Amino acid sequence: MAEAPRTSEARRDAVFGRWVVFSPARSRRPTDLKSHNPTANPSSGPGADAPKPSCPFCAGRESECAPQIFRVPPDDALPWRIRVIQNLYPALRRDIEPPPAPEPEVVDGEAEAEEQPGERAVRGFGFHDVVIETPRHDVRLWDLGAEGVRDVLLAYAARVRQLREHPAVKYVQVFKNHGASAGASMAHSHSQMLGTPFVPPSVTSRLNCMKGFFDRSGNCSLCEIRSKDILISKTPYFSAIVPFAASYPFEIWIIPQQHLSYFHEIDEAKALDLGSLLKTMLQKLSKQLNDPPFNFMIHSTPFGLSSSCLPYAHWFLQIVPQLSVIGGFELGSGCYINPVFPEDAAKILRELDCST
Amino acid sequence: MAEAPRTSEARRDAVFGRWVVFSPARSRRPTDLKSHNPTANPSSGPGADAPKPSCPFCAGRESECAPQIFRVPPDDALPWRIRVIQNLYPALRRDIEPPPAPEPEVVDGEAEAEEQPGERAVRGFGFHDVVIETPRHDVRLWDLGAEGVRDVLLAYAARVRQLREHPAVKYVQVFKNHGASAGASMAHSHSQMLGTPFVPPSVTSRLNCMKGFFDRSGNCSLCEIRSKDILISKTPYFSAIVPFAASYPFEIWIIPQQHLSYFHEIDEAKALDLGSLLKTMLQKLSKQLNDPPFNFMIHSTPFGLSSSCLPYAHWFLQIVPQLSVIGGFELGSGCYINPVFPEDAAKILRELDCST
Repeated sequence: MAEAPRTSEARRDAVFGRWVVFSPARSRRPTDLKSHNPTANPSSGPGADAPKPSCPFCAGRESECAPQIFRVPPDDALPWRIRVIQNLYPALRRDIEPPPAPEPEVVDGEAEAEEQPGERAVRGFGFHDVVIETPRHDVRLWDLGAEGVRDVLLAYAARVRQLREHPAVKYVQVFKNHGASAGASMAHSHSQMLGTPFVPPSVTSRLNCMKGFFDRSGNCSLCEIRSKDILISKTPYFSAIVPFAASYPFEIWIIPQQHLSYFHEIDEAKALDLGSLLKTMLQKLSKQLNDPPFNFMIHSTPFGLSSSCLPYAHWFLQIVPQLSVIGGFELGSGCYINPVFPEDAAKILRELDCST
Repeated sequence: MAEAPRTSEARRDAVFGRWVVFSPARSRRPTDLKSHNPTANPSSGPGADAPKPSCPFCAGRESECAPQIFRVPPDDALPWRIRVIQNLYPALRRDIEPPPAPEPEVVDGEAEAEEQPGERAVRGFGFHDVVIETPRHDVRLWDLGAEGVRDVLLAYAARVRQLREHPAVKYVQVFKNHGASAGASMAHSHSQMLGTPFVPPSVTSRLNCMKGFFDRSGNCSLCEIRSKDILISKTPYFSAIVPFAASYPFEIWIIPQQHLSYFHEIDEAKALDLGSLLKTMLQKLSKQLNDPPFNFMIHSTPFGLSSSCLPYAHWFLQIVPQLSVIGGFELGSGCYINPVFPEDAAKILRELDCST
């Protein structure tokens, strides 16, 4: 790791267009940064198979959950490995009428807000689903084999394809909260997705920013990333990097090397490759940062986008370990202060051996 | 309070252009929402004057702080009531050369990102200052009289006017973090400001959104707010509301009733009026929500903006109590889930009596 002291630097990335201030003076050495809120560190040895009495996500307690959408494997005679169910406390409700008129679509990257400024309210229609990643209470996503993570990713994709069929659903945000301080209300390993009747604001601004880069350079901003300094690992189909202007210390992006706009079109081979890389990255974060709470989000492309937008729309998966508190500067300005330079974080994660 | 159950609703405001999902099903009653992380509740009775041995912000320990910029009153022979000092661990550094070329300004609300897309890095030049609001360790901002809060606001404004003279400073973000989980590393009551060599992303998108409303309606989106349902309190010069599409439960905006673009032009009479209203709002949040951690941010207008932008640029102060965890949905989509409808929060805060 570079031992020379670095000077503060402000960087803007080409995907979100956000300024981030890198300020190493505000932290100890990057290698000293650890989570103060480690998530429960369950045993994966004997006893991990035992269901937890109060957990409705454990095998045998399916009747306490909201209705199931599908399961893997589909055959009820076999024990399930993955269940996709409705959220019992949905933020958006599937049982009410969708908004009457279709929302204006994001076309050519124009911000929806510019088309219809002003206050608006629509009924809270939408879908809020949960993916139970394992029947076992004490197994974390990265304790599964690469095939197990692949199957979770394929379950996400299958459910997104179902939601895409609904004419009122404009976008599906797939995400995982791990640890209470990252927003997880259940300890049992699970992910969530929300199908929204509008294109979320960060999706619009991301597409606008990527369009700006494309208009100027003729290239997709994610296809263009070639720096070895920020690379953690490369597989046949994906690259894992610490982004050039990471908002959070040790933030990771996993990016398809091919220019692909839609996560939900992923095939089995790519899902296995991604599953293996995602597992490794989560292991590395857990080992390096003391099992931190984290979120990951799949950034895909809104449905029904004009084909002219696809050359700059490139999906990726973002992992954010929760190591720092968001304060008034970040809330007010949208600008983040990160004490760890991406090159330093990438070097640490690249060199960390998780094989033992 | 309305007892009829409300249905989920998604709302977009006319200032930030953000969609917020109001989902009462995910919470108990709004009146039950309390902070689980109450900040230390210091006594303001006997003993509150005693300095805390380890606190460099207390009277008598000025030599342990970074250099002072100015104090109130200026006369060194009198004890100070407010000190404006440099941050000892600055996120941006005043001692390095500013970026060579001026950044493109926000003109007519055009997003900077559209003018210069792509990755960028600039030296981390800027100013990071601290406002010590009182010499007494255990006094909170809202324990001061209205005149005391006025003087803090006037100190902010005076420092912003100084920073404005620097040609490389494009914006000053004034903010306060109260409580460790809101980002405060010091318990002694203080605020901060960052003078940045760029216009922060949220400022650009706020101005773009307000421009959109103005272009369509001919009015400023903040001048247009008239709903009594979301009003908490009105003084001669300011209104305190829960915004129509509040991202956070019990979020409050304090808005000048006159159309004013720049906070730093505030005069003594308006600062006293704002001081009184801010004090009341912080008292109400503390009483209603179990002394929650909070942030407040002053949203002003970048320096050197073209005069054609001023008709839609209206400054305001935003208070965000920290009651909920930000998870992957919010991080990924930029869309917030708020369990409390603004009308309900406003009614509770309006009717809460803090005079006793």
